[in-house]
Amino acid sequence: MEVQLEQFKQLQNGNIASAKGFQAGGLHCGLRKKKLDLGWVYSEIPAEAAGVYTMNAFQAAPLKVTQESMAKENKLQALIVNSAIANACTGEQGLQDAYDMRQQFAETIGVEEHLAAVASTGVIGELLPMDKLQKGISQIPEDQFVGANKFETAILTTDTKEKGIAIELEIDGQTVTIGGAAKGSGMIHPNMATMLSFITTDASIPASHLSDALKSITNKSFNMITVDGDTSTNDMVLVLANGMAENQALTPEHAEWSHFYEGLKFVCEYLAKEIARDGEGATRLVEVQVDGAWTDQGATAIAKSVVSSNLVKTAIHGADANWGRIITAVGYSGEPLDPNKVSVYLGETLVVEKGVPHPFDEDVAKQHLLEDEVTLFVKLGDGEGKATAWGCDLSYEYVRINASYRT
Amino acid sequence: MEVQLEQFKQLQNGNIASAKGFQAGGLHCGLRKKKLDLGWVYSEIPAEAAGVYTMNAFQAAPLKVTQESMAKENKLQALIVNSAIANACTGEQGLQDAYDMRQQFAETIGVEEHLAAVASTGVIGELLPMDKLQKGISQIPEDQFVGANKFETAILTTDTKEKGIAIELEIDGQTVTIGGAAKGSGMIHPNMATMLSFITTDASIPASHLSDALKSITNKSFNMITVDGDTSTNDMVLVLANGMAENQALTPEHAEWSHFYEGLKFVCEYLAKEIARDGEGATRLVEVQVDGAWTDQGATAIAKSVVSSNLVKTAIHGADANWGRIITAVGYSGEPLDPNKVSVYLGETLVVEKGVPHPFDEDVAKQHLLEDEVTLFVKLGDGEGKATAWGCDLSYEYVRINASYRT
Repeated sequence: MEVQLEQFKQLQNGNIASAKGFQAGGLHCGLRKKKLDLGWVYSEIPAEAAGVYTMNAFQAAPLKVTQESMAKENKLQALIVNSAIANACTGEQGLQDAYDMRQQFAETIGVEEHLAAVASTGVIGELLPMDKLQKGISQIPEDQFVGANKFETAILTTDTKEKGIAIELEIDGQTVTIGGAAKGSGMIHPNMATMLSFITTDASIPASHLSDALKSITNKSFNMITVDGDTSTNDMVLVLANGMAENQALTPEHAEWSHFYEGLKFVCEYLAKEIARDGEGATRLVEVQVDGAWTDQGATAIAKSVVSSNLVKTAIHGADANWGRIITAVGYSGEPLDPNKVSVYLGETLVVEKGVPHPFDEDVAKQHLLEDEVTLFVKLGDGEGKATAWGCDLSYEYVRINASYRT
Repeated sequence: MEVQLEQFKQLQNGNIASAKGFQAGGLHCGLRKKKLDLGWVYSEIPAEAAGVYTMNAFQAAPLKVTQESMAKENKLQALIVNSAIANACTGEQGLQDAYDMRQQFAETIGVEEHLAAVASTGVIGELLPMDKLQKGISQIPEDQFVGANKFETAILTTDTKEKGIAIELEIDGQTVTIGGAAKGSGMIHPNMATMLSFITTDASIPASHLSDALKSITNKSFNMITVDGDTSTNDMVLVLANGMAENQALTPEHAEWSHFYEGLKFVCEYLAKEIARDGEGATRLVEVQVDGAWTDQGATAIAKSVVSSNLVKTAIHGADANWGRIITAVGYSGEPLDPNKVSVYLGETLVVEKGVPHPFDEDVAKQHLLEDEVTLFVKLGDGEGKATAWGCDLSYEYVRINASYRT
């Protein structure tokens, strides 16, 4: 959490359409009973684009079509997203449906087909009801300016709240805005990509550098959250940069490159944490900070091991300072470490010092575990490696939601 | 499940003391409020011994002491186990306590110290109350013949039932008996070792071959179960073979080696499945059979990925034929596979054929998911690799148990 918010100005009600030249909207087309289920984002001009995609072998059809769009010139001008049905494991028909969805959307809003991206989220293995979807797409123009809040709503599934943000920063004396929206609540354990997250900026930045920045940042943000250890078939993050802020094109040589990088990272980290906080059945956000590992990679594995542990997650749900479970999860991470150097803190309370229990005030520890944001620190004392991961507690509600998701 | 039970005779009320020359017992020494909390196993003569131990970096003190015992001549004559407190993460004092526990136990029952093993299971990070433990050990002689059922009870923690078995088979015309007991309900995701499991046999078999067989079998039994993905600090399996059946010493060259191997495997698999079935909060046993992977190792990773998925586990709890979650877990296993060749069965119901949904009768599928033993088949169609893993559903009860384990 080295990001200083003072570097950026977070916009009140900032969203995915805050950056210059972007619009977004959403409507109901009947995939879900009543809730909005179709959303889109549009840029006045083609934007440099970058994406990361799920590592799941069963990559859903829309991800294939979107990657095909991007392959042409790494540009996007618009994207469309439906919720309720993931269009995953749907074979040839599903792929054709994703192509049709892209084509009709591109035609309707008047952009070239390869400048349009498609995304889906929801139940796996069901075909999209194309008649409803097509009817919905045909209604886009008249609704186009309804606002980003409808987009944020339309992409949700079991999420309990919208997730959006925008920040402003200055590059070359120009105001650059970075905005974003995300969805994700279950099947969250991204690997090289994540749930659905869309980011827009009016910064000028070539696609290749945007892609490098996105990959690097994804590994520290979206790839560091977990709700249930399951990596979805539909995870995707897309970033569109339309250059309308008129700064000098950003490259790593640009004097303010790191300022932009940190801004993009802040937005990704914010959205990632919002997803973890809104994990299915979650009552609080859990942050695990690891330092002193031999490598950053080792610290990452350990932080993820702790934040993924069902036993740690249930203990936090019960506000039980059962640090033995934290130590256990550190120990089975598979990373080399000296058990006699490991210290653990629950918030500011030291509970394990160099491998042995440290006496502590149970009430103070419990108080921290009852807060909205719980932080666990694991200090290994071996090297300089560090990492932070985010997750949530595991509740009865998680079981209720998932024992009857389809029915 | 190629093991034919007809090859072996399963003894009614068979247990860890069924093999010739073994005795076992248990008593209450005050580590737990009322339940038995101290158990032991004794062989009339020193037995060849083999063990496998947790891969968790925070290996508990008793495991270190037991491995030291074994290091001397790979023989054991007795073992003692306490429940309630794991004696893990207890530093120098914990190690000394484990040594003292071994010493007093060995002296009390009259065996050499290096022929005694110690094990503990329960809460991590608390020291053993040595006064209570020592008082308990001092009472062993008079209770020594109380029976194996008390041993089975004394080693339990959150388990809901005892886990014991014994089978008979014939080797060299002699009756050989293999018996065992196990405990484990939470923090179950063994890796190279598991919870606590003790196996006794009167077979004659050198320790080196016993060890090879145990390691190979552990990878197909105890290492193939998961309750919650957490690998404990105290996992251990010990096998004692005292040779009192008077068969020719078993080596891989022995004509009936594979008969013994299959018998030992049957006992290990039985105990492993009993642990999975009795997983914390579990209402049913889940078996995942994978075939057609490129390698057995790949099949193992995929089977474990499916059986470990919280989303698969909650869907089974809700008897929801949500096969998309199975496909997803197959896909994020990290193993190479062709999604277009994958078929999935819920029991006998085909739900995915070569990567696309297969129409099926929801009621029939649901009926299978409501059974005590649920079997999922994943057929990859790539190669000859196969594996079977066991786990359980994820219920409200799991959360309840683990949100308040210590309190």
